[in-house]
Formats: sequence, C-alpha cells, structure tokens
Amino acid sequence: MGTDSNKDIEKIMRHGRPGGIDSSEQDLLYDPNVPTPSHAEDARTLFSKISTATLCTMSIDPEGFPYGSFVTFAEFEGKPLFLISALAEHTKNLLKNSKASLMVSEAGEGNPLALGRFTLVGECVRLDEKKISEAKEAFISRHPSARFYIEYSDFFFFTMDVIDVRYIGGFGRMSWIEGKEWFDALPDPLAQHSDGIIEHMNDDHRDAMIICCKKLSKATDTSDAFMTGLDKYGFEMSAITSKGPRPIRLGFENKATTSEEARKEIISLVKMAREA
Amino acid sequence: MGTDSNKDIEKIMRHGRPGGIDSSEQDLLYDPNVPTPSHAEDARTLFSKISTATLCTMSIDPEGFPYGSFVTFAEFEGKPLFLISALAEHTKNLLKNSKASLMVSEAGEGNPLALGRFTLVGECVRLDEKKISEAKEAFISRHPSARFYIEYSDFFFFTMDVIDVRYIGGFGRMSWIEGKEWFDALPDPLAQHSDGIIEHMNDDHRDAMIICCKKLSKATDTSDAFMTGLDKYGFEMSAITSKGPRPIRLGFENKATTSEEARKEIISLVKMAREA
Repeated sequence: MGTDSNKDIEKIMRHGRPGGIDSSEQDLLYDPNVPTPSHAEDARTLFSKISTATLCTMSIDPEGFPYGSFVTFAEFEGKPLFLISALAEHTKNLLKNSKASLMVSEAGEGNPLALGRFTLVGECVRLDEKKISEAKEAFISRHPSARFYIEYSDFFFFTMDVIDVRYIGGFGRMSWIEGKEWFDALPDPLAQHSDGIIEHMNDDHRDAMIICCKKLSKATDTSDAFMTGLDKYGFEMSAITSKGPRPIRLGFENKATTSEEARKEIISLVKMAREA
Repeated sequence: MGTDSNKDIEKIMRHGRPGGIDSSEQDLLYDPNVPTPSHAEDARTLFSKISTATLCTMSIDPEGFPYGSFVTFAEFEGKPLFLISALAEHTKNLLKNSKASLMVSEAGEGNPLALGRFTLVGECVRLDEKKISEAKEAFISRHPSARFYIEYSDFFFFTMDVIDVRYIGGFGRMSWIEGKEWFDALPDPLAQHSDGIIEHMNDDHRDAMIICCKKLSKATDTSDAFMTGLDKYGFEMSAITSKGPRPIRLGFENKATTSEEARKEIISLVKMAREA
C-alpha cells in the first residue's frame, strides 16, 4: 500500500531535512548493511513504551467527519486495548462504525517532525467476553488509576483488529506495514532499559563513543559523540564532525537481550575501536 | 450538539474520578461563582501554547477509514495553519475529501485523563493565495526549521474552517463549542507567563497560598498548597487538607492582563487573607 510512492516521499523528505539530520546515502558515514530493526520492530517497540494516543473514529454528529479524541491504551495480544465510557463520543461513534485508526507518537524535544510515530488502521470492536479478566489485568498494570472505574457497567473494553500500519520513524524513514508483519514483530527487549543506558553513556562515556566514531566509522574527525538510540542489534550516535552532526550506527557482534548483554557488547566495540 | 448528554457524561466522569481529583459540587470548598474562563477561552489558550497535534482525515487507501497523522501547526486568524507535503498521506486525503478534525492535547505528568485537550472539527482547505506571505511569517515564527522547505513547490498551506469544537478540560469539565464562540474567544493574556509564575509561587510562596486557602476558602485545615493554574480572572490551587487534595479557585478583583498585574492581584489576595 502506497509502496510505489514511498521512494518519492523519502526523496522529498530528504530535500526538506533540517540542519543536523542527514541520512541520505551519499553522506552515510557508516556501513549501511549494519543490522537495524525493521520498521515493524521499531513501531512495536514504540508501542510498548507509550500508553496515550489519538483515536480516530467516524463522527456521528457532525456526520461524516473523522473525529480525533485523546485515549489511554494498553497493549493486549499486540493490539491496542481501550477502556472507554458508553457516553464518550468515540464510543458512540465506534458502536455505529467500527472503522478507526490510532495515532501513537513519541514525545521529545527538538524538531517535532524528527520524532517517531505510527498509525494503526483497523476495526475497533468490543473485546470478547472471555478475555475480560485478562484484559483488566493488562489495563490496570498500565493505567493503575483505571481501577476506580474498571468495574463500572458503562465502561467497555475495545480492541483494534489492526489491518495496516503507517510508520514514520523521522525524516526519510517511513513505510506501510501490513497487519501480519505488525503482529509477527516483537518490541525490542531493551525497550525499557535503553533510555537509562543512553543517559549513562552520554553522562560518563562520551570519550569511548568518540573513539568508536573515529575508528569504526568514516567520521574520523569526530570531536564529540552522543548516543541517540539503542536496540538489540546495536546503537546509534550523533557524531559531531567538522561538517556538523552525522548519524553513526554500529552493530553488536551478538544480539543483546538484556542490559547486561548490551553493556558487554558496547564494551567489546569500544575495545575493538581502541585496538584499531 | 451533544449538549443534552453532557450532564450525563459529567455525572459519569465524577463517579470515575481518581483519587485527589474532585470537583463535585457538594464537596466544593470555594465559591462556585468565582469568575472562571469559559471553555472556549480555555481551548483558545491551549491552542496558543501548543504547536503539534493529530490531524484526522478520510483515508483514500485503505478506503473509508478515519486516518490520524502527526502534524505541526501554527495559529492563523484563530484557525490552525498547516504546511504539508503533496506526497504525504494526509494531503492526498484532504485533496479528495476536506472533512477533517484536529486533536490538540496538553502534555504533562500524572493522570493523562486529567489533561486538557480539544478537537477542532471542520473543513481543511488550501489557503487563499493572497494570504500566503502572511502565513509564511506566522508558520516560521512558530516552526523555525520550516524555513528549509517552506519555498518548495510541493509543500502547501492548508487551514481549517472550524465548525465545531469538542473541549475536555479534564475530569467533569467538557462541552461542545460552536465555531462562532471559538472565533470570538481569545487566548488568555497570561498564557505565555503562567507556567513561570506558577513555578515561582510553588517554589517560594507556599505559605502565602496556605493562608489564602485557610482564610479565603472553606479549606480551613489546609496544611500545604500548590498553584495549579493561573489566568486573567484568578488562580487555582490544590489545597492539601485532612481529607486529601482539594481544588481551590480564587478570583482577582481586576482582570490581570500582564505578569505585573497578576503579581499585584495575587499580593492583594494574600493581604486580604492575612488581614481576615
């Protein structure tokens, strides 16, 4: 879906990239074949970390308009799970027309268009009665204050049968993901730890990252380096070069599924850089 | 629109209120007739402070689904102004069907359902050519990095002719606002200063606020107090009482349109409390 035009979109987005964000291949200062999460994996990782979004439903009144509303959600069997009031506009809309989408966006500083986000498109239906008790547990573990109204007879669980996913990982990184691919992908095992590791690396180990950029990438004149991303396959940095900030991605020798494994893989790359 | 059911929704939301949030009238510890911004004014104030949102359009492919996407916007003549690529999904959708909505939400900590948000419902159309240069200025002043692509021939300005607005100011504070009321209302003149004043009051003047709660409201056993809101008509606090946190609103004698006027009005209320 829309696949033919994605290349064109990417081309345009690269034209429009603001200062400091550059991922066009002619400028790439690292091996483009380094293992990288798929768009489906990236979207599933974001999905596992975020719990508020915009639900889009078909408005009954005014009729025929797509209607966006703020919702909280939990993840349930790879789908978003909603606990919504019978009296809320989106609930009335869904009971009339199940067609919906959910726009989930990363929060963050800097250029907002560089943030990751995705839209799940699908049919929103009431949850199967047999799954209610499991759903309650999943929802309360994500939204503890929902315990105050979870037993009310006029609040219902809905889930979305995801058909298609539009993923936009920032500038020049976007695609449509089919429902099957979405459900087959898994969130990154480091999702809950990566922010802490990144903060630690940027606070205490910038020297080690500068050496990694100088020795393991083409950014040989790196004067400073900041970690910007971490996943089971490797990590990403913003290398400050004489031509401005450049993205550098380095891959791990083995997939890291825990903080401890990530630590070992990072140390191993730093050692390799120091010995190079 | 939906007005008849709003009272019911409010009733339900009050049932469901989580700990610490309480605005049911039997518990109200301050004068309910104290001047308060209208929902239209509150929504216009939020609108003036936020510049990213979710745009909902009618999807072409997959057809018939409401489609949510992340957008940046600027305020222009009371309407949202978008600068969007011809190749983006939402632009293609709008060129086929102008029906749209824009969900704008406050960011913040704590219970996400207590945050303010609103949805503008209307028709999204290309901006009148005569207004382009004015629009460029408005957009760049809000989104400086847009200067990199604002002159591209495949980026277009769109605005929304707002028909209806759904405002939800948190628990039990919601209504539909008609387009005319939206355009007639103005953002609060303290919008850009209130966060700074609130921080200063909470850092340095909690004692003064405790006295205000004890003497100018029914929260006579207040042990601590935090400012939670400030506008031209007055300010709001969370008073820590023996029964938990309670909202207290106090009105100014004169409308405050500048930080300095707000300072004078707050001092005058503190003086009144000390002399009471």
